[in-house]
Amino acid sequence: MNSTATLPGLVEMLRTIAQGERSAEDWIHTCFDQIEAREDQVGAWQYRLSRDEYLAYYHEHQALLSTRVLKGLPVGIKDIIDTKGMPTAMGSTIHQGRIPVDDATCVELIKQAGGIVLGKTVTTEFAYFKAGKTTNPVDSERTPGGSSSGSAAAVADGMVPMSIGSQTAASVIRPAAYCGTIGYVASRGELSLRGGQPLAQSLDSLGLYGAKVEDIQLLRAILLRTDSTLEALPQAIPLQRVLVCPGRLVGEVSVEMEHALSLLSARLEDHGVVVDVMADTDNIRRLVHCHEQIMAWEVCRNLAYESRHQELLSQPLQTLLTNGLAMERKEYIDALNQVTELALWLKQQLSSYDAILTPAAPGIAPLSTQGTGSPHMSRPWQVLGLPTVTLPGYTNKQGLPLGLQLVGYQREDDVLLAQAKWLLTSIYQK
Amino acid sequence: MNSTATLPGLVEMLRTIAQGERSAEDWIHTCFDQIEAREDQVGAWQYRLSRDEYLAYYHEHQALLSTRVLKGLPVGIKDIIDTKGMPTAMGSTIHQGRIPVDDATCVELIKQAGGIVLGKTVTTEFAYFKAGKTTNPVDSERTPGGSSSGSAAAVADGMVPMSIGSQTAASVIRPAAYCGTIGYVASRGELSLRGGQPLAQSLDSLGLYGAKVEDIQLLRAILLRTDSTLEALPQAIPLQRVLVCPGRLVGEVSVEMEHALSLLSARLEDHGVVVDVMADTDNIRRLVHCHEQIMAWEVCRNLAYESRHQELLSQPLQTLLTNGLAMERKEYIDALNQVTELALWLKQQLSSYDAILTPAAPGIAPLSTQGTGSPHMSRPWQVLGLPTVTLPGYTNKQGLPLGLQLVGYQREDDVLLAQAKWLLTSIYQK
Repeated sequence: MNSTATLPGLVEMLRTIAQGERSAEDWIHTCFDQIEAREDQVGAWQYRLSRDEYLAYYHEHQALLSTRVLKGLPVGIKDIIDTKGMPTAMGSTIHQGRIPVDDATCVELIKQAGGIVLGKTVTTEFAYFKAGKTTNPVDSERTPGGSSSGSAAAVADGMVPMSIGSQTAASVIRPAAYCGTIGYVASRGELSLRGGQPLAQSLDSLGLYGAKVEDIQLLRAILLRTDSTLEALPQAIPLQRVLVCPGRLVGEVSVEMEHALSLLSARLEDHGVVVDVMADTDNIRRLVHCHEQIMAWEVCRNLAYESRHQELLSQPLQTLLTNGLAMERKEYIDALNQVTELALWLKQQLSSYDAILTPAAPGIAPLSTQGTGSPHMSRPWQVLGLPTVTLPGYTNKQGLPLGLQLVGYQREDDVLLAQAKWLLTSIYQK
Repeated sequence: MNSTATLPGLVEMLRTIAQGERSAEDWIHTCFDQIEAREDQVGAWQYRLSRDEYLAYYHEHQALLSTRVLKGLPVGIKDIIDTKGMPTAMGSTIHQGRIPVDDATCVELIKQAGGIVLGKTVTTEFAYFKAGKTTNPVDSERTPGGSSSGSAAAVADGMVPMSIGSQTAASVIRPAAYCGTIGYVASRGELSLRGGQPLAQSLDSLGLYGAKVEDIQLLRAILLRTDSTLEALPQAIPLQRVLVCPGRLVGEVSVEMEHALSLLSARLEDHGVVVDVMADTDNIRRLVHCHEQIMAWEVCRNLAYESRHQELLSQPLQTLLTNGLAMERKEYIDALNQVTELALWLKQQLSSYDAILTPAAPGIAPLSTQGTGSPHMSRPWQVLGLPTVTLPGYTNKQGLPLGLQLVGYQREDDVLLAQAKWLLTSIYQK
């Protein structure tokens, strides 16, 4: 265990600032202390401001920043999301030195709220499989997961109190699970993707990282331009009925992950929550397959420019593009139609429950030599466009994170987060 | 009537090149002759290459271009869509001089197919209501419609054989109707929007303009990276059963537009097509309202940067942003849910028909002094994400275009275009 996380969470930090216990500048120094101590090992950053550069900007704008909710605290932005005047290379040598002329809308809104972009966090190549330099903050031999590797690691390691990622398959949830932090994927269509590089239009969602659910709630309010005062943060909502989707219904899963799921299920029942297990079905695996088909078709139709530079692409991405181009349109349309049909099926399954509880990854983070881990645990929910949030806390005997996730109703993200808040603050136990 | 269109359509031009009748360079000169003769009046271009610049590029790449399907012919790109190294200002002084670092994927694919970007076509301010300088090629006192004003006018006037637009409300279909050319809006999610500025993620679609349906079919194949040889163009498919949605079910409509719809309906019946009229319902107007609600909510969450420059925005856009920010989330979610419910209703209505036939605009193009026209005729189909194509040909007594549109099944764009091809080549008559 290497992690030495030092931040109590974004909202908690803002409370200490409001109460005059610590200044924003104190917290900024804490972040840079952590980065300077840990970045050589964690490698979360593709590009970042130095402490001096950050403080120069902070001091220049301090009067204005002090009136904004985020008070000048730092944010990490996945390097697949455009930042004006700051390199955005999408994890690929093809775009080395690329400097966008606009901020993505999510970046703009964080800035308007008084956040400062400390830097760009490492992404896998075009948010697909090829790993960047980031290591898992909990165990440096292991992968942080992909593709939002740096965003997850930076928050999990306490380098910054907030970061932005994106998910097409499992790119927010899996790194959150592996690093033991909170990752949230918004319902599809919920948050603006303007300025984020699209990978697959039927699958892409924006994601957020924080140490606590309340941090996610605050960031979500900022991105939705709704009331983003600390006083307006939604209260916890107790879960009453939960549907468990065991990992084996999705695909390969470790024994210790299924055990963590059982432990939390039992604990929920102890607290009077009705917990039912989803009946055996191959529909969840069908959703996994549909996701794969849709992704292959769409990715190669988005990465048209990059297709011209095959020699600069990793082998897995070349294969995905080749497969996508070789697909019959019928397969793609069949997959889309199956998803429509399965969405109705799942809605019925879910109708008498508040949420689905299921593994966020197949197990602990694999060794980095084995890649960034498998995304199947997220594919069913992602292809349906459902909001999800990871539940960190459970670990295996060696203390490595075993992340679970709570999956909610489409567009009911606020309810989902309020339920996760209840779960994590009222009844969760390691 | 001022139009002096000189191009027989993209595919027809390519056939003359294949048969050695005319060279690509001949056609390029024809395009520039038209532009130089007409641009002062039509004003379709926000930015464009000069004839010399174009020819210099063409000659430099001629060997390669001659192997590609589009042979170096020119395309116009709506100025809301990014072009690498070419100004993209979105119809707003806020982005004057903005030069993107990437081509949008649609631009990249057209280039890969051997098209050359002649320039950027005029868009209304952020693809909303504030008109640019473009006039209607058929009558310079009248609006070309918005927001893809320049893309529609440039093709309608024979300045270029193809152009790209985008539609959030009626931004492709209405200009096509007013200018008397063919506009096609793809099913939502069908074509990559990477590099196009998003306005409303639940509503945005890419659109294409051409003189004939076969031109649209070719461009669609290029953008989908499927077989884009001339020999692979899908054949016409006869319509058998058509459901007519009278304009009055959507909103305000002119007597002459309803008359054009009746004329085509009668003509279809003469050819043995079953034509039924949709029973009175307020569901279509409900869809219009849902579209307005969703658009207001999402636009102000995408145009976050621009919100900071209120003084540089037009009054209608300021109002939209203000309304969107003042909305309750409940109204937005209600609108989304109503659309889901109404989509099922419409699917049932449509189940025994091939397509919907309905006005593409409330009437002829208004005088430019009255704005760019009302978008309501497209809102119901756009909010449902359905593919649509305009049917030019009918005019009022003064010869001004009265565009109708054919609306198809989601993701069945190929069938819709093949039916439109049949309709326009086999039975349409002015």
